[in-house]
Amino acid sequence: MTPRAPAIVLLSGGMDSATALAIAVHDGFQCHALSFRYGQRHEVELAAAAEIAKHLGATQHVVLNLDMTAIGDSALTADIPVPKARTADEIGHGVPVTYVPARNTVFLAYALGLAEVVEAADIFIGVNALDYSGYPDCRPEFIASFEHTANLATKLGTEGTKIRIRTPLMSMTKAEIIRTGLDLGVDFSLTRTCYDPDVEGRACGACDACLLRLKGFAENGLTDPAPYQAG
Amino acid sequence: MTPRAPAIVLLSGGMDSATALAIAVHDGFQCHALSFRYGQRHEVELAAAAEIAKHLGATQHVVLNLDMTAIGDSALTADIPVPKARTADEIGHGVPVTYVPARNTVFLAYALGLAEVVEAADIFIGVNALDYSGYPDCRPEFIASFEHTANLATKLGTEGTKIRIRTPLMSMTKAEIIRTGLDLGVDFSLTRTCYDPDVEGRACGACDACLLRLKGFAENGLTDPAPYQAG
Repeated sequence: MTPRAPAIVLLSGGMDSATALAIAVHDGFQCHALSFRYGQRHEVELAAAAEIAKHLGATQHVVLNLDMTAIGDSALTADIPVPKARTADEIGHGVPVTYVPARNTVFLAYALGLAEVVEAADIFIGVNALDYSGYPDCRPEFIASFEHTANLATKLGTEGTKIRIRTPLMSMTKAEIIRTGLDLGVDFSLTRTCYDPDVEGRACGACDACLLRLKGFAENGLTDPAPYQAG
Repeated sequence: MTPRAPAIVLLSGGMDSATALAIAVHDGFQCHALSFRYGQRHEVELAAAAEIAKHLGATQHVVLNLDMTAIGDSALTADIPVPKARTADEIGHGVPVTYVPARNTVFLAYALGLAEVVEAADIFIGVNALDYSGYPDCRPEFIASFEHTANLATKLGTEGTKIRIRTPLMSMTKAEIIRTGLDLGVDFSLTRTCYDPDVEGRACGACDACLLRLKGFAENGLTDPAPYQAG
């Protein structure tokens, strides 16, 4: 790697992508953080993403508006109840209702477009196969296939640059992600994970994402610094 | 194939995608046409796409707004001159300035999302390797790789449905595309191909797309029924 090579980092405002950004910065990349506004209920994440990008020293933070009107039909974008208080065993099985059709394919496609513009060979995405095994587009075989496609799709890839989709969190537990992030200076009080926050952005503490996050902090003997709804 | 299985057809308003739609309809699919508004200069294509979708009997015509502001940097979306009056030999070499970064990857990613929503296993795209060999994301190896990725990316693909990216025009010459379209009842006067039309949507007659189109009609001994600028 040349010093300060550019990289694209998908940044949702959650703890995983914040840690992925911290890793990319630590690895010496000049990071272009990329977020999307796509009708998600948890738009508070976008404000968090902007703060995190600044806090971790991203070169720029790009927010693109996605039109998912005809496509989004998920508990994250539509009026479907977010499941609450499921056990770890329940969380790990099947494709959850919070799945957004082809979401990571769309996100990575845009990241690839931006990568071509800034001539970045590296795209970071904070997917995790251990804790989110229900999402097909978080699995290593999907990422490997997308990487192959990306190299065939682009002027950059076909002209000799090897594009890499980097997934530094793929095999980490939530507890390991938290420990890694803390080691690299991530302020987790800025990150937002909840699928169903209140209007002030406070987490519900009961959806799958909250349960996994709280478990990760507990396993490190820590209290989550993010705000939670009372009760 | 079950009768009237749903399919997604990417429809630009140009002659290739119109012919692809006619083929999909002829093959018995219930066609969901999908177009994008992405800051292209030739927005007149979108009006053409709507007319073509109706004319050929698409079930619905979805237009999604794409935010390519940070990504688009091409003669098709930015203020870069569209090359004129190039020879067929010049057209066939290198990636043209009209290339939009990762465009077909983004288009196919959205098509995949819509495919999941309407449970379509088939996605039609009117790419053509013979006449547009300069675009990396029009090549068969890109399409095959995207298809593989699509099956790994989605709930549909991982639950046993084989998703297919169909490219019926891949090996056709422009003349063959025109003949096929005419056989299937495509009204080419509705289609818009020009990279640099005037405000009334009349083609310039000199950009790469016009030259290839005019050559295709000439090879069939026909006059293009679409409107051209005087001179």
